[in-house]
Amino acid sequence: MSVTDQLIANSERYAASFDAGDLPLPPARGVAVLACMDARLNVYGLLGLREGDAHVIRNAGGVVTAGERRSLAISQRLLGTREIILIHHTDCGMLTFTDDGFKNDIYQEVGVKPDWSAEAFQDLEADVRQSIRRIQADPFIPHKDSVRGFVYDVTTGGLSEVKPETA
Amino acid sequence: MSVTDQLIANSERYAASFDAGDLPLPPARGVAVLACMDARLNVYGLLGLREGDAHVIRNAGGVVTAGERRSLAISQRLLGTREIILIHHTDCGMLTFTDDGFKNDIYQEVGVKPDWSAEAFQDLEADVRQSIRRIQADPFIPHKDSVRGFVYDVTTGGLSEVKPETA
Repeated sequence: MSVTDQLIANSERYAASFDAGDLPLPPARGVAVLACMDARLNVYGLLGLREGDAHVIRNAGGVVTAGERRSLAISQRLLGTREIILIHHTDCGMLTFTDDGFKNDIYQEVGVKPDWSAEAFQDLEADVRQSIRRIQADPFIPHKDSVRGFVYDVTTGGLSEVKPETA
Repeated sequence: MSVTDQLIANSERYAASFDAGDLPLPPARGVAVLACMDARLNVYGLLGLREGDAHVIRNAGGVVTAGERRSLAISQRLLGTREIILIHHTDCGMLTFTDDGFKNDIYQEVGVKPDWSAEAFQDLEADVRQSIRRIQADPFIPHKDSVRGFVYDVTTGGLSEVKPETA
């Protein structure tokens, strides 16, 4: 039995006790969360989110690239969110390699170099500020009054805010 | 008090009862989940995931673009995941507009047309199959033996598998 099969079996238990079947499409709390994909970062648990509360966007590093700007534009323009929460975390895999090294390793193995930036970074707080600035610089995301960034500590479960003005 | 402040207050309660501070960086279950950002789709609850189990990648629609191929390559190559689970869902916002319409609306308002595809789709199951095919066609994601796609029903909480061979 694959892990996928085991998780699908879990989903049958979720459906059996499901009672949130009448929620509207727009997020009730009007928030979009953009976080790293890291397995230890349980966004619903951490922020106390319930089904229907917030958009959750996640990728390797919690970085802001074209795809995240697309998702945030859809979130705000079509589904009414107004606040953005960015979450990076300690012990992140993105701190363990460089774009050049990772892409050259792939090139050596595959014979083709990836056509994307790996978005590795060397400093957690600096990358949170970079992500905030990428959102602030984007012309297609209309609501930027509340764009706040945090670092999640995987050893304590705590969030620390990163202040952009100290960049 | 902003919604962000309320969610940060929630995170303090999470940290106060946190007991998962010694988990390793690689996901314990060896799975990456790629799902829509929809607020009603609680990936941890649905699949019975606990902190440390799986990478969770999310965006508007749960689509596969360059950023998701980047995240999946990092997930498999650097952090050892081997299975991929794709989740779209019923009543998805991506079914309610077209790329041309959305981008033209932005152009009319901002004076600049977005430099990204909005990735709207008209058929949920067809787009799950399209996402599977984009992964299968990618040269940088090494492990493709278990790439399975599902539609989550927001009214029942249930998952239905989409079989790629019926495309």
